[in-house]
Parts: sequence; C-alpha cells; structure tokens
Amino acid sequence: MADSPLSGSSPAGLPWYVAGSQVLGLACVVITGVWMGRYRGGFAWDGSSHEFNVHPLCMVLALVFLYGDAIMVYRVFRNESKRSVKILHAVIHLIALVIAVVGFVAVFDFHRSAKIPNMYSLHSWCGMVTFILFSLQWLMGLSFFLFSRASAQLRSWYLSLHVFFGLTLLALSIATCLLGIAESAIFNIMPEYVRFAPEGVLANTLGLLLVGFGVVVGYVVTRDDFRRPQHPEEEALSMHFKTLTEGGSPNSP
Amino acid sequence: MADSPLSGSSPAGLPWYVAGSQVLGLACVVITGVWMGRYRGGFAWDGSSHEFNVHPLCMVLALVFLYGDAIMVYRVFRNESKRSVKILHAVIHLIALVIAVVGFVAVFDFHRSAKIPNMYSLHSWCGMVTFILFSLQWLMGLSFFLFSRASAQLRSWYLSLHVFFGLTLLALSIATCLLGIAESAIFNIMPEYVRFAPEGVLANTLGLLLVGFGVVVGYVVTRDDFRRPQHPEEEALSMHFKTLTEGGSPNSP
Repeated sequence: MADSPLSGSSPAGLPWYVAGSQVLGLACVVITGVWMGRYRGGFAWDGSSHEFNVHPLCMVLALVFLYGDAIMVYRVFRNESKRSVKILHAVIHLIALVIAVVGFVAVFDFHRSAKIPNMYSLHSWCGMVTFILFSLQWLMGLSFFLFSRASAQLRSWYLSLHVFFGLTLLALSIATCLLGIAESAIFNIMPEYVRFAPEGVLANTLGLLLVGFGVVVGYVVTRDDFRRPQHPEEEALSMHFKTLTEGGSPNSP
Repeated sequence: MADSPLSGSSPAGLPWYVAGSQVLGLACVVITGVWMGRYRGGFAWDGSSHEFNVHPLCMVLALVFLYGDAIMVYRVFRNESKRSVKILHAVIHLIALVIAVVGFVAVFDFHRSAKIPNMYSLHSWCGMVTFILFSLQWLMGLSFFLFSRASAQLRSWYLSLHVFFGLTLLALSIATCLLGIAESAIFNIMPEYVRFAPEGVLANTLGLLLVGFGVVVGYVVTRDDFRRPQHPEEEALSMHFKTLTEGGSPNSP
C-alpha cells in the first residue's frame, strides 16, 4: 500500500483537477476572510457586526471548502484502506459540522443583539434546510457505513442516495452562500454596489469562485475514470456488492 | 413502437417522479406569475416595472421548467426513435432560449427606462454566465449530435461533458433564480419582509420549490435504472458506442 495519496495509479488529469479545486477553494476562504476582515471591520465575539463576520467565514470554510474536500477523499486517497478513507470522510464532515454550528451561533447571536428577526430570508431558509439535511446525511452515513449491521444490499441501496444527496447538498450549500453574498452586498454596499465598488466586485467574484469550486469538485467525483480502483482485498470481501466498496456507485451520479 | 410516452417498459417509480417534477415545475411557473401579477402590479411592455415583471416569469419558464423537461425527454420518451427524442430535446431547448432572450430584453429595457445600471449584481453575473454557457451548450449539442460529421469516439467523449454541464447549468440557473428572488424581496418587500409578509413567504416558498424541481429532475436523469433502454436497431448501429445511443452515458452523472 503506497504512502503518497497521489502515488501509483492516479488517472491522468486527476491531480490537476484536485489541485485546481484546492486553489479555488482556498481562494474562496481567503477572499471571504479579506472581505469580512478588511471591508466589514474584522472579527470579534461581542454580538456586534464583527461577530456576524464570523458567520460567512465559517460557512464558506465548513460547508463549501471542507465539505467539497470530504467528498473528494475517495478520489484522492486511492491506495489507502477503504475503512481509513471512510473515517477520514466522516471526520472532515464532523469538523465541517462543528465549524458550521459556530457560524450559526455567530449570526443568531448578532441578530439577538441587533434585534434583527431570524429566519425571514430565502438565504436563511435555504441555509437551515442545507444544515438539517447535511446533519441527517452525516448521521445516516455513519449508521449505514461505519457502525452498521445493515445488510450489504441495504447499504448498497443507500449508497446511491448518499452520493446523490451529497452532491445535491453541496450545490445547495453553494447556492446558499451566493444568497448570503447578495444579501450582504445589497444591505452593506448599496448604493456604491451599482457603480462597481471594489467591495461589490470582490463579493461577486467570490460568488463565481464558489461556483467554480463546486463545478470542479462535481466533475472530479462524477467522472467515471477518476473512480477509486477496486482493491484485491476489498474485492474478496464484497464480490457481489461492488458498488459498496468503490466509494461511489456506478449507479449514482 | 408504442405511442404513449410512458407505456411499456417504464421502470417502477419513474412516472411518479416525472409527475412530481411537473407538479413542482408548474407550481414554480404559476407562483412566479401570481407573484408578479398580483403583488408586483402585473405585466406590460412599456419600460415600466410591469415590463420588468416579464423577466422572472420568462426565466423560470425557460431556464428552469422547460430546461428541466428538455433534459428529462430521454427518460420519458423511452420507446420513440433516438433521433426523434434528440430533435425534441433540441427544440425544447431552442424554445427555452427564445423565451430567455425575451426575459433578458425585458430587464435591460426596464433598466434603460429607469436608469438603473446593468450587470452590477451577483444575480446578473450568474445569469449572464448561465445564459452564455447554455447557448454554447446548445450549439455544441447541435453540432456534435444532430448535424455532426464527428467520429463516434469524439461524440461519445463529448456526451459525458454535455450531460455533466447540462445538469451543472440547470443547477446554476436555479441558483440564479434564487438570487433574483432574494434581490427582489429585499428591494421590494422590505421592511415587511422581516415580519414574514405574505409576499415574502410566497417568494421564499418559490425558491424552495425551484430547488425541489431541480432535485427531482437531477434524480430522474442520474438514477441508473431510469436510463433509456438500448433498442435493438440502435444496438446494431453502435455496438461499440453504447454511451452515445443511450441519451446518457453510464460514465457521466
């Protein structure tokens, strides 16, 4: 078993797409940090708008960058044992979940201090739906694939749903970020926003980069020749449930 | 060859998912019409905000509902000839393209009359990217699959990209609609929006229904056992390029 995650049998092109996704993903996190840090007054935990600024940074870091990386682990770590990669997948998602909770607390705290009602906007509706379904998806994944007594058939059936909803929720998560960017730009940058103020252009650019990250991650995890190869010991264990041991079902997106 | 689009070999569940998508899609179009017609003063073509109201209706109808239906034709029309279904796919996309152009003219016309700058918002950036890529995708599809002298290998290679970007652009199109809803709600329904004014709740509900439509369409076109069966005459023509004649590649999402 090779040590390097990209050693050996990595298909042509895959390392470039993965590198591209990381450049896009890190750019999103850095630009969100710069936007909140430089244009919106920086970060604090005092109920002020500086506490609000923690919210976008946490959400982009957790529910876009870490989320995207967590679903790419099966493509990147091609030579590690399947169980190790599953655990890594679950742990990155757990870290994302914890950071997302901090991001939620930041915005609810700020709203309470500033007496702004919660949950009235489309951004908040989409965000709450994404967060609840993401948490459920994590619990379902854990109970089906890591601590399961479910039959291999049942696990194979759920895997295709898990993969489909995993990608769908990443898309919804990115759409929710776009809504947050639009809200923030209209609330904070108007009327200069219509005159292409640098902060507005930065915010819009962030939106397009988030979309770009999602597209590259989606491409990496759905392209057939990027799939994780079947390892001999896994093959022996699950001859009849090939889909279950590939980290992505050929029956699923 | 059967006449009914859902006759014969339709897999269990498929008609229900298709019916569900149509209920969701039509609900989106009707709610957009009601929102613009009842709450925003109705439709006209006079440079006023009533001309603007044509924009959301055209976009939801064209780049969500018709677009989604166009990509589902390969799942719905299972017993028609492959070429007929391809033509239907291209024609529905063409109708969508024309309606989208009307929607574009409506908003640019309104902006000119009202002296509102164009293309400053994230909604406009995402919308323009979606529209340009959608048009390119349509032209590429036409030249590769309907009027092509390209080799079967080249067509098979492009098909997986066509399918991936088709679904990705539907997602981006829906995300752009969500951004439009958020903008309109903040510009027009504030400050009642924060107090859950009926118009705001309707707008947010429209957003969730658009997401629901996209999820159901995505599920129908990516679920493996919903794929169009290989017909004997197509099999004879393309034994080695199975992916090309199935309307969806097993290698693609």
